[in-house]
Amino acid sequence: MAKTALVAIADGIEEIEAVTVIDVLRRAGVDVTVASADGLQVAASRGVRIVADRVIGQCAGMQYDLIALPGGMPGAEHLRDSTELTAMIKGQAASGRLYGAICASPAVVLLHHGLLAGKTATCHPAFADRLENAEGAKAVVVVDGNCVTSRGPGTAMEFALKLVELLCGLEKAKQVAGPMIVGFGT
Amino acid sequence: MAKTALVAIADGIEEIEAVTVIDVLRRAGVDVTVASADGLQVAASRGVRIVADRVIGQCAGMQYDLIALPGGMPGAEHLRDSTELTAMIKGQAASGRLYGAICASPAVVLLHHGLLAGKTATCHPAFADRLENAEGAKAVVVVDGNCVTSRGPGTAMEFALKLVELLCGLEKAKQVAGPMIVGFGT
Repeated sequence: MAKTALVAIADGIEEIEAVTVIDVLRRAGVDVTVASADGLQVAASRGVRIVADRVIGQCAGMQYDLIALPGGMPGAEHLRDSTELTAMIKGQAASGRLYGAICASPAVVLLHHGLLAGKTATCHPAFADRLENAEGAKAVVVVDGNCVTSRGPGTAMEFALKLVELLCGLEKAKQVAGPMIVGFGT
Repeated sequence: MAKTALVAIADGIEEIEAVTVIDVLRRAGVDVTVASADGLQVAASRGVRIVADRVIGQCAGMQYDLIALPGGMPGAEHLRDSTELTAMIKGQAASGRLYGAICASPAVVLLHHGLLAGKTATCHPAFADRLENAEGAKAVVVVDGNCVTSRGPGTAMEFALKLVELLCGLEKAKQVAGPMIVGFGT
């Protein structure tokens, strides 16, 4: 059965991060739901208008193999302030299922809601002083248990492929990377 | 005065390529118009729904410092088949102003319309045998006069930053790359 993922978006989300994660997961055959914490159509951080599959309230009670959070400001704050999304991420973390965040979102969303407690994580350098583990913050992608974090638009491809590796295996990640002209796992 | 760019999209366009170019150019202060060769809302190659600023017919007669073409199939064919866009790219090439294409689009659009004649170019490996210069086809980004070409989603960031360098200078490209966690020009 295909793996499932929820990718959360909102007004002010970083569009390279959001779209790279959605695109790469779908290339791997993951059943991705793009869910908005705002209206169905969002204006991303550099003005790209993206239409979600659902608003987040329509996903409450659903279970996904992965919940992934792009960054961008103020998008990450919109994700943080969604009580429905927050409940879903907390449930995801507690259940041991995979959750990931990139750029501003590890600090602005996960740390804020106590979901980095005891975890090594990374995030965008502008927010890295909030993290407990300054050493981990220098890595491109950090995996600690079921929590995956990364740094910014330039690391979004590596982040997305790591999520594919964790959901679908290293061979699938390599198969997806090749035609995109990305070296991965070599 | 701000530089201007038209980024063409269509149903089936590769969304990482489209969004990376739009986002990075806007980070550099370029006034970007996202113009659709189909309806105002397009469904990109992996199902991401993007809303354009205009349809291409509304841009006819306008002049841009850059016209950029993402790839993806069948998106590149939709760009190729737009008579309005074709007229604009031919005018762009003839005038000496900058035009760029990535992935399928160098072969499917530019080559098809005679806009790679005498140019060294690169494109996605799946289309590279159509190009005259097989050696050039191995480079990540190729600049030949006012024509800039690149290979796929994994080279979209480098392609976008090269367009920024050509429009706004190397220092601006480096300034844009840094906060995105991308090394460029170093």
